[in-house]
Amino acid sequence: MTAFDELISFQRETEALAQIAGRLGWDQETVMPRGAAEQRGEEMAAIEGVLHARRTDPRIGDWLAKAKAADAAGMRSLELIRRAYGRNAAVPAKLAAEIARVTSVAQGIWAEARARNDVAHFLPTLEKVVALMREKGQALAAAGFGAGDPYDALLDDYEPEATAAMIAAMFDRMRPRLVALREAILGAANPPKPLSGHFAEARQLGLARDLATAFGYDWERGRLDLAVHPFSSGSGNDARITTRVVEGDPFNCFYSTIHEVGHATYELGIDPAHFFTPLGQGVSMGVHESQSRIYENQLGRSRAFTGWLHGQMHAIFGDLSVATAEEFYRTVNRVQSGFIRTEADEVHYNLHIMMRFDLERALFGGPLEVADLEDAWNTRFAKDFGIAVDKPANGMLQDVHWSVGLFGYFPTYALGNVYAGCLHKALRADLPDLDAHLARGDARPATDWLREKVQRFGGLYPPGEVIERAAGFAPGEGPLLDYLEAKFRAIYGL
Amino acid sequence: MTAFDELISFQRETEALAQIAGRLGWDQETVMPRGAAEQRGEEMAAIEGVLHARRTDPRIGDWLAKAKAADAAGMRSLELIRRAYGRNAAVPAKLAAEIARVTSVAQGIWAEARARNDVAHFLPTLEKVVALMREKGQALAAAGFGAGDPYDALLDDYEPEATAAMIAAMFDRMRPRLVALREAILGAANPPKPLSGHFAEARQLGLARDLATAFGYDWERGRLDLAVHPFSSGSGNDARITTRVVEGDPFNCFYSTIHEVGHATYELGIDPAHFFTPLGQGVSMGVHESQSRIYENQLGRSRAFTGWLHGQMHAIFGDLSVATAEEFYRTVNRVQSGFIRTEADEVHYNLHIMMRFDLERALFGGPLEVADLEDAWNTRFAKDFGIAVDKPANGMLQDVHWSVGLFGYFPTYALGNVYAGCLHKALRADLPDLDAHLARGDARPATDWLREKVQRFGGLYPPGEVIERAAGFAPGEGPLLDYLEAKFRAIYGL
Repeated sequence: MTAFDELISFQRETEALAQIAGRLGWDQETVMPRGAAEQRGEEMAAIEGVLHARRTDPRIGDWLAKAKAADAAGMRSLELIRRAYGRNAAVPAKLAAEIARVTSVAQGIWAEARARNDVAHFLPTLEKVVALMREKGQALAAAGFGAGDPYDALLDDYEPEATAAMIAAMFDRMRPRLVALREAILGAANPPKPLSGHFAEARQLGLARDLATAFGYDWERGRLDLAVHPFSSGSGNDARITTRVVEGDPFNCFYSTIHEVGHATYELGIDPAHFFTPLGQGVSMGVHESQSRIYENQLGRSRAFTGWLHGQMHAIFGDLSVATAEEFYRTVNRVQSGFIRTEADEVHYNLHIMMRFDLERALFGGPLEVADLEDAWNTRFAKDFGIAVDKPANGMLQDVHWSVGLFGYFPTYALGNVYAGCLHKALRADLPDLDAHLARGDARPATDWLREKVQRFGGLYPPGEVIERAAGFAPGEGPLLDYLEAKFRAIYGL
Repeated sequence: MTAFDELISFQRETEALAQIAGRLGWDQETVMPRGAAEQRGEEMAAIEGVLHARRTDPRIGDWLAKAKAADAAGMRSLELIRRAYGRNAAVPAKLAAEIARVTSVAQGIWAEARARNDVAHFLPTLEKVVALMREKGQALAAAGFGAGDPYDALLDDYEPEATAAMIAAMFDRMRPRLVALREAILGAANPPKPLSGHFAEARQLGLARDLATAFGYDWERGRLDLAVHPFSSGSGNDARITTRVVEGDPFNCFYSTIHEVGHATYELGIDPAHFFTPLGQGVSMGVHESQSRIYENQLGRSRAFTGWLHGQMHAIFGDLSVATAEEFYRTVNRVQSGFIRTEADEVHYNLHIMMRFDLERALFGGPLEVADLEDAWNTRFAKDFGIAVDKPANGMLQDVHWSVGLFGYFPTYALGNVYAGCLHKALRADLPDLDAHLARGDARPATDWLREKVQRFGGLYPPGEVIERAAGFAPGEGPLLDYLEAKFRAIYGL
């Protein structure tokens, strides 16, 4: 075996073990008996220990020094392995272990604090997490990641090539148009009505399955289960989705299902030749989110598709509080100022992200300290959203991310929206009759286009390049903003 | 850390990883999407590779040489680790890898052969498996396992302390009484009627859950799912069960559920201090089977318990083809000569085992070759059961065991029955009013007794010792045979 073959073979086993850790996570959130929680912690620690040892195995360095790739896929594989190995090697083992130890406890403390609306209960833990992540950022920056900037070095893990400066500049361009749109909408007469009624769980789940099928989800290689917080899990030929059911709000179930179908279908759409190689998964969080968001929003919340959904809901649940398809389309796309990011409409969503991005940059580059975070959050939220945070669970305690050390992750959600805007523009140009399919509850032509243009490549091209190849132009915020303005001006009669 | 602490800590991680491999197996047989099969093979191979490397890690030898235990549990842990490490070290790595490779393929070929009733399709593979297992037995025997006997060295993996000679002598004592009982029963007038009717899946599963609850199954630490071949899975605080549903034969679902509850409740009953240590699992296959069999047969098929079950079935399914509780008791315990071991009644079951035991001993010590196995099986079956095997799926292709190299495993089923007989005798003496509880659908007093007397010890005592401590006498076949004769003479009016 050549050094390249040895390295790739070692990597395949590591990827297979990483898949196993993912399966355990799925099990834990869907089917695991409650009494097994503590034991599962020990099992997860054991497999994470094996993975860490493999990912920092010095043989990888030796193989990398000697390996020669025969083609572009091989060269890209080496590049991704070199990058991941370099990142892992840059973080001292003691620091990595301490981060693992602290964040595994921190999530539970955060959940307690959120349930009790008790920020003070969480702050000492968050102090520790932030200190550790600052240290990690500095260690990575010292090794050259993020061009020497600690926050960029963290961001680089989720969105390679992105920098805080580039994102900040993009957000500066997006903000005025989003704010103007938001203000016009909130001042509009005749806003859409909310949906009311009771929607039984079994029927919601039945329709959720139909929605997944409508988007081409491959049931031979996936499944749908319930989870407290919907997620998708797994790569290759086993990418599962989850949803949740709120009996008064069926859109929660339906749109979380479509969102997770986007993530899972990206994984399932990757060329099988890449499975278990460094190219065998979505290339970045931003590109991943572009798939879930284009499915959920640009397609799933389109007039054509909601027309079909309205008919389905009428057939399944009987008369709805919203009678016509047009009224239903407006209801699905109702814009409202609200506390919770995950429940935000398309207009507000990116404003939630911008706020988190600015706060976490201030935590990392200064001058914000954890003790002042709640004040900073509440002041900024009142300014951006026009309402005062009523309790921490609706404020800085709402997201799990920071408790587990995910700094630099939030902006990838907004990048996903921006990428989705670019892809949607190109997709509509290529598929002029897409609405006719969507109106029949068939989004598969869009899935086929996305598989061909984006999904099948997996990690072969860097994030910006894969979007540019697919869209035919360099990605930017323009198409997303044009789409939002056109859509919501029409809905609100502006 | 002392050498003992280092060893136990290493062992804990290995046990946690082994649990993970078990979870993957559960996933594969219950919830995995069909299209994931090939990928799962690669994942399983990766975790098995990690486990093999850990189990043969030379550091174990170093630690064992230095480790000193502070108490009886520690000494027993060292003994079990030494034994397992010695077994793993005795088998050359190349042979172990070849066995893993061949048996992973062999199971699929066996399944194809069984589906097609094509013995010739399976024979070349079985030849290979037998040759490899002979080689493994010899390697283990050369290292002193099984007192130098290859078959005993294999048996020792499933039932430490047992030898083929001791089992053969026991079978020689059992056979005449079983054969006499069988012949008397088959000649009896007025045999019980079979149950007929259609029993809907959802209702069967509902009652299966009630049955598990009746035996004290801990739903906080377990769950029930469907599987093609029922099994239980997991240790510690996560021991799950599975069942299957045949709509014309509800006893299949009900008694497989009770059987698996026995296995899972053993695991769940182990002292939590032993979890993830070498004492944290059932001590042998025989003792494990004693728990599943006493739940299924001595308790679950008792007159008192079937009286309650009859009432439940009547309430759930309406009028049954068997009207009275007494008639129902006889139906549940109907004795019939049949081809399939897993469907055998209590009288015939051990005869199936004796036949397999003799055949596999002849394959290992004796004059039998794989090419002649089908003839040997069919000749022996006709002699013992009085009916001619009609097709290989009802003959030598019915069990998966040999395809995956499980030689020396079958006799542990009969040992389990024998142990169950001993435990049942002692349990009835200690709990004179047990029938009053069983008649109300409450087998928990029996579970409490078994937990206290057997289950909580896990691997602390060797198999024979744990049964002797629980029963108050040295285990032997007498109590089982006495029980069978008394029960079936009454049922058949002999």
